[in-house]
Amino acid sequence: MEPKERIYLDYAATSWPKPQTVIDAMMDSVTLMAGSPGRGTHGMSLQAGRVMNKARLTLSKLLGFGNPNDVAFAQNATMALNLAIKGLLQPGDHVITTMLEHNSVRRPLEFLKRTQGIEVDYVPVTMSGRINMEAVKKLFRAHTKLVIATHSSNLLGCILPVEELAQLAHEHGALMLVDGAQSVGNLPLHVERMGIDMLAFPGHKGLLGPQGTGGLYIHPEVQLEPQMHGGTGSQSEEPEQPNIRPDRYEAGTPNVPGIAGMAAGAEAILNIGVEQIYKHEWSLTQTIVENLQKLSGVKLLGPALGEPRTGIVSFILENQDPAQTAFQLDRKYGIAVRAGYHCTPLGHSQSQTTETGAVRVSVGYSTQEHEVETLIRAVAELSRG
Amino acid sequence: MEPKERIYLDYAATSWPKPQTVIDAMMDSVTLMAGSPGRGTHGMSLQAGRVMNKARLTLSKLLGFGNPNDVAFAQNATMALNLAIKGLLQPGDHVITTMLEHNSVRRPLEFLKRTQGIEVDYVPVTMSGRINMEAVKKLFRAHTKLVIATHSSNLLGCILPVEELAQLAHEHGALMLVDGAQSVGNLPLHVERMGIDMLAFPGHKGLLGPQGTGGLYIHPEVQLEPQMHGGTGSQSEEPEQPNIRPDRYEAGTPNVPGIAGMAAGAEAILNIGVEQIYKHEWSLTQTIVENLQKLSGVKLLGPALGEPRTGIVSFILENQDPAQTAFQLDRKYGIAVRAGYHCTPLGHSQSQTTETGAVRVSVGYSTQEHEVETLIRAVAELSRG
Repeated sequence: MEPKERIYLDYAATSWPKPQTVIDAMMDSVTLMAGSPGRGTHGMSLQAGRVMNKARLTLSKLLGFGNPNDVAFAQNATMALNLAIKGLLQPGDHVITTMLEHNSVRRPLEFLKRTQGIEVDYVPVTMSGRINMEAVKKLFRAHTKLVIATHSSNLLGCILPVEELAQLAHEHGALMLVDGAQSVGNLPLHVERMGIDMLAFPGHKGLLGPQGTGGLYIHPEVQLEPQMHGGTGSQSEEPEQPNIRPDRYEAGTPNVPGIAGMAAGAEAILNIGVEQIYKHEWSLTQTIVENLQKLSGVKLLGPALGEPRTGIVSFILENQDPAQTAFQLDRKYGIAVRAGYHCTPLGHSQSQTTETGAVRVSVGYSTQEHEVETLIRAVAELSRG
Repeated sequence: MEPKERIYLDYAATSWPKPQTVIDAMMDSVTLMAGSPGRGTHGMSLQAGRVMNKARLTLSKLLGFGNPNDVAFAQNATMALNLAIKGLLQPGDHVITTMLEHNSVRRPLEFLKRTQGIEVDYVPVTMSGRINMEAVKKLFRAHTKLVIATHSSNLLGCILPVEELAQLAHEHGALMLVDGAQSVGNLPLHVERMGIDMLAFPGHKGLLGPQGTGGLYIHPEVQLEPQMHGGTGSQSEEPEQPNIRPDRYEAGTPNVPGIAGMAAGAEAILNIGVEQIYKHEWSLTQTIVENLQKLSGVKLLGPALGEPRTGIVSFILENQDPAQTAFQLDRKYGIAVRAGYHCTPLGHSQSQTTETGAVRVSVGYSTQEHEVETLIRAVAELSRG
């Protein structure tokens, strides 16, 4: 039996559907604009440059930084995190981070551990996102260069105290890097007020843009070693990357249609209001948690009912492989969720789901109440076996 | 006076217009497919994975390699070249390359020279693309690891003897990396038959796809250190990037709509035939060269009339700044070309245009005969001052 309706609850992987303005912006770009931004003087090339500048301006408003040139565009949040981590750290540096980080933080760190002898402490986080700050304080050393935390766990949806961590970092002469993969566009965020020195973000999740986009906000006083070397259209005779921003961190032809789409998504969010989006998603997660916790045989992960969280609810059904649950939700009920491991092995260990993985449901800006009700009925049926 | 017609002659920067099938493929992807390829099991996520696999297959046919998983997608050719160069070279290695390389080759090499003590020889190339092979032979040393050459100069359009260089490289135990930025899609190319160990290419030039795409072909026996560390959807519990291809070299969410567009572009080229495209572009450049060389006050760069070349013709007008020429071509005649420095400082030094830069005209698959005739008339007028 084919399900009548398709319900998309995999927003933490990518947002869908994209706003029509996002699609239109991409189309305008790919049909009307040719030439590389900043490299030609003919009309279409200049137009591409204007799209890039406008995108920086929109992001500076949404994320709270003064100079639009302090954002470097990247292919995805992973590339932004690699630039932040590898561009900053040097042999012998020490890093404090959490056990809820995605592999896009853990793997660059483990690579630098192996090749450059950097040292890393992974601190535990509760299901609600709490961290023992006294314990963190004791971890700082003379050569602690960086604190890294995800703003919201991609497995649990809990929100981490990034402002407090930033304050601790600064008190100890370290910098604060935040992984905004699940928070940008979903959670109010202001890098300057929150003391965030670097913020990595994807364009295709909360920002509602297309895949292949993202960026890194870099505080004006933070200097990173570029990770990509090549043409910038500026100071082309120099053998080194130019010092000016954003050119220094953006070698090669950028993804102009993608960035146009990401900017349109950011505009859409500014119009709706991030607070509105957060409230909407939070309300939907509360309905899910309230109902699923009544079911026997459902083990919920993440914050308790009433606590802050982004739009993610993960769970496992007793005696059922999460992959099987997700498969049935898709084929029998037309509900798209994600199962398995969520690129966060220490997060699974924290939530005691290393052996099983988990089913992850994630709502977004356009999720409807009736869709989560269908999900709840479906999980109830599946939990009865 | 506004020009009646817009003529696009900046194909070497990016191809335009894109085929309708490219635009349609991007739209299908961004409107119909959600989820990360290889990371979810719901329908839309699987569909995204199929798009990626089909793209690899199409590229393997177009570029001549047996295993579709031997291509790693990248944001642009620059990122592909960075992976090839930094992923292969180790402290003390020696590299032979040419003076016609783009900054996307030169800057990574200069970075490694400064930070890791690698050694680089830049060999001269004639305006026609000829290289003194006897002189190259003498440059090989015990620790020569890599030979790098652009397949076609982005300034001169000349075609370099990459097959001969590959043979020399192999005879001396080195590998051959080709920068296909100007050749892929414009010039017949078969990596296996030509002995190319790595081929970097952009998606948005000859391949007719959107900006934000590209890739690196990597011979199955060549092992590179990944430059991007993060989630791959595979072996997610491991702290290191997985060994399997293409995951090893593709961390983070890929540009699915862009890759769908690039694959549609590659299909279009397979349908037309690269030989046809080459003949079409060559014929147009011959018309340009034949007519411009009759004009006094026009200094042409690159191969002589009748010699092989890709669709690029660069020139300077005596007593006129190339930027001024390009500006007039755009505003007065509606012709988009590119002026200035083309990210190839040694190339300018080779062609004695370091002080001036050059006007670069570049034709493509959809350039019409009457368009180059308009260009020729315009340059004739401008050359009379």
